[in-house]
Amino acid sequence: MKRILIQLDTDPQPSVFDRVVAVDADVDEIFSYSGVTPENVEGLVHGAIFTRKPADLKYTAIFVGGSNVAAGEAVFKKVRKSFYGPMKVSVMMDSNGSNTTASAAVLAAARHLDLKQTTAVVLGGTGPVGCRAAQLLLSEGATVRLASRTLDKAKSTAELLSAAVDTTLLQPVKVESPSEAQAASLGAHLVIAAGAAGVELLPTGTWRLLAGLEVLIDLNAVPPVGIEGVEIMDKGTERHDVICYGAIGVGGTKMKIHSAAIRKLFESNDQKLDTAAIYEIGRSLG
Amino acid sequence: MKRILIQLDTDPQPSVFDRVVAVDADVDEIFSYSGVTPENVEGLVHGAIFTRKPADLKYTAIFVGGSNVAAGEAVFKKVRKSFYGPMKVSVMMDSNGSNTTASAAVLAAARHLDLKQTTAVVLGGTGPVGCRAAQLLLSEGATVRLASRTLDKAKSTAELLSAAVDTTLLQPVKVESPSEAQAASLGAHLVIAAGAAGVELLPTGTWRLLAGLEVLIDLNAVPPVGIEGVEIMDKGTERHDVICYGAIGVGGTKMKIHSAAIRKLFESNDQKLDTAAIYEIGRSLG
Amino acid sequence: MKRILIQLDTDPQPSVFDRVVAVDADVDEIFSYSGVTPENVEGLVHGAIFTRKPADLKYTAIFVGGSNVAAGEAVFKKVRKSFYGPMKVSVMMDSNGSNTTASAAVLAAARHLDLKQTTAVVLGGTGPVGCRAAQLLLSEGATVRLASRTLDKAKSTAELLSAAVDTTLLQPVKVESPSEAQAASLGAHLVIAAGAAGVELLPTGTWRLLAGLEVLIDLNAVPPVGIEGVEIMDKGTERHDVICYGAIGVGGTKMKIHSAAIRKLFESNDQKLDTAAIYEIGRSLG
Repeated sequence: MKRILIQLDTDPQPSVFDRVVAVDADVDEIFSYSGVTPENVEGLVHGAIFTRKPADLKYTAIFVGGSNVAAGEAVFKKVRKSFYGPMKVSVMMDSNGSNTTASAAVLAAARHLDLKQTTAVVLGGTGPVGCRAAQLLLSEGATVRLASRTLDKAKSTAELLSAAVDTTLLQPVKVESPSEAQAASLGAHLVIAAGAAGVELLPTGTWRLLAGLEVLIDLNAVPPVGIEGVEIMDKGTERHDVICYGAIGVGGTKMKIHSAAIRKLFESNDQKLDTAAIYEIGRSLG
Repeated sequence: MKRILIQLDTDPQPSVFDRVVAVDADVDEIFSYSGVTPENVEGLVHGAIFTRKPADLKYTAIFVGGSNVAAGEAVFKKVRKSFYGPMKVSVMMDSNGSNTTASAAVLAAARHLDLKQTTAVVLGGTGPVGCRAAQLLLSEGATVRLASRTLDKAKSTAELLSAAVDTTLLQPVKVESPSEAQAASLGAHLVIAAGAAGVELLPTGTWRLLAGLEVLIDLNAVPPVGIEGVEIMDKGTERHDVICYGAIGVGGTKMKIHSAAIRKLFESNDQKLDTAAIYEIGRSLG
Repeated sequence: MKRILIQLDTDPQPSVFDRVVAVDADVDEIFSYSGVTPENVEGLVHGAIFTRKPADLKYTAIFVGGSNVAAGEAVFKKVRKSFYGPMKVSVMMDSNGSNTTASAAVLAAARHLDLKQTTAVVLGGTGPVGCRAAQLLLSEGATVRLASRTLDKAKSTAELLSAAVDTTLLQPVKVESPSEAQAASLGAHLVIAAGAAGVELLPTGTWRLLAGLEVLIDLNAVPPVGIEGVEIMDKGTERHDVICYGAIGVGGTKMKIHSAAIRKLFESNDQKLDTAAIYEIGRSLG
C-alpha cells in the first residue's frame, strides 16, 4: 500500500522544501494543498480518513506547513478536531521549520551540556522557534530566561507555555539592547538567539566577558546574525573558548529530524507530531 | 508506460478522496486541477490528447469530480467536445460520488429483488444521486415512483431522464410529508432515500405498516437519516422483516465500483464512464 | 535518489502537456506550480536548492513554462538570480513550446539545406517562435530576413537578438501583404512561417513562382496556415518541387527535443537550457 502524505500549506504556494524532504523520506505520493485554513480543511481531512480501511489508515498522513506558524497551529488543531474516533491519520506540524529547528538547537546544546544543570537564555523567546526552544529546555529540566523586547510579551509567552510544560524554572526577561542582553546572560551556560533577522543583540565584546558561558547557538541564517562572531556554518566550533553553532551548523540535524518525523508518521495512524513529539524523535536519533 | 489520471475538480481544492482512490487503483501519476470550468478545460484536454502517440493514449485518462454535480456534468460534456476525432482519452464523471453511489444502491437492491418485478420509490428523486438511482432502476425494468417536494420538480427530472432511459414506467410523485411518503410507498417493494441531509421522511411506524416492502436503502451518511430506524452501518440488516442498508453499508460497494471504474479507464482511450457505464462496471463485479 | 522536476508555470493552471512529457522522460516526481511570477518564485527556488546535499542537487531541476513567453523569460531570469553560488539546479525554459518548436523547425530545414549557404525568410519573425528560429538560423551561418508587419518591430527584434547571436547577416523586412511576402522571399531557399493563427501570407500561386525556393515550413497548427498549400501533417512532403513541413510534421522532432532536454537537466546541477542549448540538444539527436 502506497504511503500518501497530504501537505496542508497555509501559504499561496505549497513549500518546495517540505515536498523535497517528503520525497527523500520515501513517501510515495504527496498531495499538496495551498491556502489551507481552519475553514476549508475539514473536507480534506474527511477525504483522508474515509477512503482507506481502518487498518490501512497508517499509510495516509498529514503534514501542516507554511511560513506562518500561528496559521499552521490553527490548521493543526482543526485537523485533529475533524477526526471521527478511530477514523484518524497521523499529523505533523512544522510551519516554517519551527519544531524541527527548535529541536535541533536544543539537541545541539545537549551534546555539550547537562541540561538539568543548565541556565539558558533564549533571545527572541517569543517567536515561534524561540518559544519552542524554551519549552524543550524546560522539559529537560533547564532553567530558562525567556527574553523579549517587552516584558509583557515575554510574560504572555511564558503563560502560553505553561499549558505545555512545567514553567517553574522559566523567567521572563526584557532585552532590548546589548547591555540588557549581557545582563540577562550573566551566569548563563547557554544562549540561543532565535530573534528576527538583522538584529544583533550580543556583540562579541559582550559575550567574551560572560563567565561560565559554554554554548552559543544563533539560528539566524541571514547575516547579520543575532550573536556577533558566530558564523552561519559553525557546528561545534570553538570561539574564545565557547562552543558555537550557526543556522546551517544546526541545519543538518534539523533535516534528519524532519526526515525521521515524516517516516514516523507512517508507523501508526495516531501519531501527533507536535513540538514535544518531534523533539523526542530527534533525541532518539542519538 | 505510466498511467496518468488527470483529475478535473470543480471545487477550489481537488478532492483528497478521489486522489486516494486513484492511488489505490494503481494509477501511476495523478495531475490534480481545481477550479475547473467548461471555460478553462479545453487547454487541459488538449494537453492530454496531443502529447502521447495515438497508440499510447489509453494510458492517459480524465476524471471529473467535485461537490457540485451540475458543474461536473458541464465539464464532462466540454471535455468530450474538446476531443479531435481519434485523439481522445477515456473520461469518468463522478462528482460528489453521484454515479458510484447510485450504482451501489441499485446493486444492493438487486441482491434481494428481481428489479423487473419491482416497484421502487425514490425519495429525493430530483437530487443528483436520486435521479441517477431512478435512471438505473428504470434501465433494469423496474417501475419507479420519483418523489420530490413539488410535483413540478419531479416532472422536470422525469423529462430530463427521458433523454437517457425509457421512462414509460416512471411516475413523478409529490412527497412533502411522512403521510405523503407513506402514500407514495403503498405497494412498493423498495424505497431508496436520497434526499437532503436532516430531513426524515419515513418514520419507522410508517414503513412497518407497508405490506410488500422488502428493501429500504438510506443514502444519507449524517443523522438524522431519511428513513427512521435504518442505521448508517446497515448492510442487509433485517429490521421488522425488511432488509435495510445505510450509507456506509452501501459504501463498500461504492468504493469497489469507483476503483474498478478507474482501472477500466485505462483499458482503451475511448471509455465514457457516465451513469450507465459505471453501473455496468458495478454489475460486472458480481 | 528520485528525480524531481519543479514545473513553474506562469498560467493559472499548470500545463498538462509539459507534465505528460516530463512523466514520459522518466522524471520521478513533478511539483507543479501555477501563477508563478518573478515576485513569488524566489522561495520556490530556495526550497529547491537548500534541501538536498550539493552532490545530490543534480536530481532536482526546474522547468519554466506557460503560454506567455515573455512572462516565462522573466521567471527564467529570476530563477537563475535566486541561486547562491554552487547552490543551484538545472533550469529549462520552454514557454509555449517556443524553444523546442524553433529548434525543430531549423533542424527540419537543416536536413535539406546547407544552412551556411542558405538565405531564409522568417515570416512572423517578431513572435516568440519566429525570433528564436531566426536566432538559430543566424547561429548556423544563414542569411536571415526577419519579417514583421512593421519595419520598426522587425528592427527591435533584430536589436534584441544581437545580444544572443551575431546579427551581421540579419535583415529586418516589412511584410504586411502577400505581395510583400513574395518580394521578401525572392531568392530565398527557405521560408519559415511562424506568424499568428489565421493569417495567410504566402498563397500557393506566389511561392510556386519563387526560383531557388527549396523548403517551406509552416508552424501554424490551426488552419488556415500561413503558407497556402502546406498541410499540417506535411513532413518533408514534396509539393511543386518544394519540400514542405507543417506543424505536426515538425511536432515529432519537437517532442523528441523536449524529452531529451528534460533528461539533460538531470546530468548535472548547472544546465541552463535556453534557446541555444535546446537547439544543441536537438542537433545531437541526429
